[in-house]
Amino acid sequence: MSHRKIVLAARPRGMPRLSDFELVTSPLAPPGPGECLVRGIYLSLDPYMRGRMDDRKSYAESVRLGQVLVGQVAGRVVVSSHPSLQPGDPVVGDLGWQDQAVAPAESLTRVDPGRESLSTTLGILGMTGLTAYFGLLHVCQPQAGETVVISGAAGAVGSTVGQIARIMGCRVVGVTGSQAKARTLREQMGFDEAVVWGSQPEDPDRLASACPDGIDVYFDNLGGSVTDAVVALLNLKARVAVCGQSSQYNLDRPAQGPRWLRNLIIKRAKVQGFLVWDFVAEHAQALRQLQDWLGAGKLRNREHVVEGIENAPGAFIEMLEGRHLGKYLVKLSPE
Amino acid sequence: MSHRKIVLAARPRGMPRLSDFELVTSPLAPPGPGECLVRGIYLSLDPYMRGRMDDRKSYAESVRLGQVLVGQVAGRVVVSSHPSLQPGDPVVGDLGWQDQAVAPAESLTRVDPGRESLSTTLGILGMTGLTAYFGLLHVCQPQAGETVVISGAAGAVGSTVGQIARIMGCRVVGVTGSQAKARTLREQMGFDEAVVWGSQPEDPDRLASACPDGIDVYFDNLGGSVTDAVVALLNLKARVAVCGQSSQYNLDRPAQGPRWLRNLIIKRAKVQGFLVWDFVAEHAQALRQLQDWLGAGKLRNREHVVEGIENAPGAFIEMLEGRHLGKYLVKLSPE
Repeated sequence: MSHRKIVLAARPRGMPRLSDFELVTSPLAPPGPGECLVRGIYLSLDPYMRGRMDDRKSYAESVRLGQVLVGQVAGRVVVSSHPSLQPGDPVVGDLGWQDQAVAPAESLTRVDPGRESLSTTLGILGMTGLTAYFGLLHVCQPQAGETVVISGAAGAVGSTVGQIARIMGCRVVGVTGSQAKARTLREQMGFDEAVVWGSQPEDPDRLASACPDGIDVYFDNLGGSVTDAVVALLNLKARVAVCGQSSQYNLDRPAQGPRWLRNLIIKRAKVQGFLVWDFVAEHAQALRQLQDWLGAGKLRNREHVVEGIENAPGAFIEMLEGRHLGKYLVKLSPE
Repeated sequence: MSHRKIVLAARPRGMPRLSDFELVTSPLAPPGPGECLVRGIYLSLDPYMRGRMDDRKSYAESVRLGQVLVGQVAGRVVVSSHPSLQPGDPVVGDLGWQDQAVAPAESLTRVDPGRESLSTTLGILGMTGLTAYFGLLHVCQPQAGETVVISGAAGAVGSTVGQIARIMGCRVVGVTGSQAKARTLREQMGFDEAVVWGSQPEDPDRLASACPDGIDVYFDNLGGSVTDAVVALLNLKARVAVCGQSSQYNLDRPAQGPRWLRNLIIKRAKVQGFLVWDFVAEHAQALRQLQDWLGAGKLRNREHVVEGIENAPGAFIEMLEGRHLGKYLVKLSPE
């Protein structure tokens, strides 16, 4: 038996290139006691993966050269050597960029087909939705009527944050990279305003115009100049959740930017980094809430699907470039 | 009747110069109904005053050109037109840089001569002590055994923060500007370590050596390169209180520095600005605690006193340059 996987061929310098990845076909040993063979159906692509390709210290181990890239996969059990899972069961697990994998049954989470589709368990009802939920609601505690700004607003997490903020009765302003995405955020995702951010000198003015009452909550996926502009507009007791810093991930060393800690004193504002794993004890409860909102039509799920494990590297680069809207998935095999 | 005061003659550009200040002798109207005439005895000099000399937006109004500079004064009532205060009563109030002043009795706080000396009400039992208390204990919530780092550690607030952190059972590392101050922090103020920070490339290494278990709590009075170095050493769930950014106050525009928000994600750390006025409801209780510690010899009060309102501008510049240790006071008249 063999499987296909994408391994790290070279550590990217800056934006990854296709040559940093390699498609490898290799033999796959049958599952041992307690293990399952899983056929992958969807692979989740997420910005955090870029960090794992570097050799520097972070909250998790780097991927070694020649090793399969890390990532969450939703699929179906093909062979099981553990009584808790049966062939055909839908599961999610950290199986990496490969179309089939063998993993301990205990590392797999069974999906409830009555309530979740396989793709949503990787997105709005999975790590993506939970990241949005805890970063916004627990770190920032938004109140009705407050202005919430989101950078990387058209991404999987950002577009979910905006929708949850709307449910909370906030005024929601997204910052995104193109007019097309800004329009979609306004017209289809319920954002009150969407500001295009490039490198124009007038960008900060446009952000200020979109936030006439200042900014109470900022959910940062991006960092860099957007964040500088937001900090200048923070209100008293503002809360900032730092979820990602995508604008910095492709840099060899940290970029320079204006020092703005003084504004945190003036505004008595809080800036806090977080990971979805900090809230594991509350994941189940949050998932029920997200499911309810999705079922009631209060949350919309947007997916961008590319076919074939062999196309994962190109899709990943496209995701980093922010040319999509919503959750980025690679379809590995038919459902 | 006349009094002497220091007014803002010119807005400082960078470090203030003596020519930015002017000593003015002017008539003083007698107190009206509800007002008191107060003879100043001590004027408090604090880094925040530098911000008030600029024309930019902050948490408080700028001082206008020709206006008396703001500051807290401890003194004695000379004439009272309000039943709550009698001539001879010791009081504290926001009277500004002047040797006598007329103010509403309601804006003055009576000092309890049994428990407090006039000078400590401006320092360790006043805004200074309260700033240290709330910034450390409420914003950072240090636990016994944690490492607490303080920038501007020899200043009035910093040296108090370090002592409170010791009372809490923390390992305390001060960052300061000279070997002499570092020695005093270690030998007289109970700091476990004191690191001299200048602009040497080896400074960050020395800080790392002084914090072998990383940094759990950072109390920032200074900002700039010290703060960058601290952020690189933060532990998981670290807390940073931003009290001041003295290294930035004399700059025309914000300095540039490395962007480090990503490290807040990796460490799930929190950075929070605060002002002592955010905790007014708890001031009385905190003052009782500070008094108890002071009485029990657990807190030491260090003061640096310069004589004469006419010397306040030079003293203020010296304070900004950090050449003193502890609380900086100008003696306005004999006790």
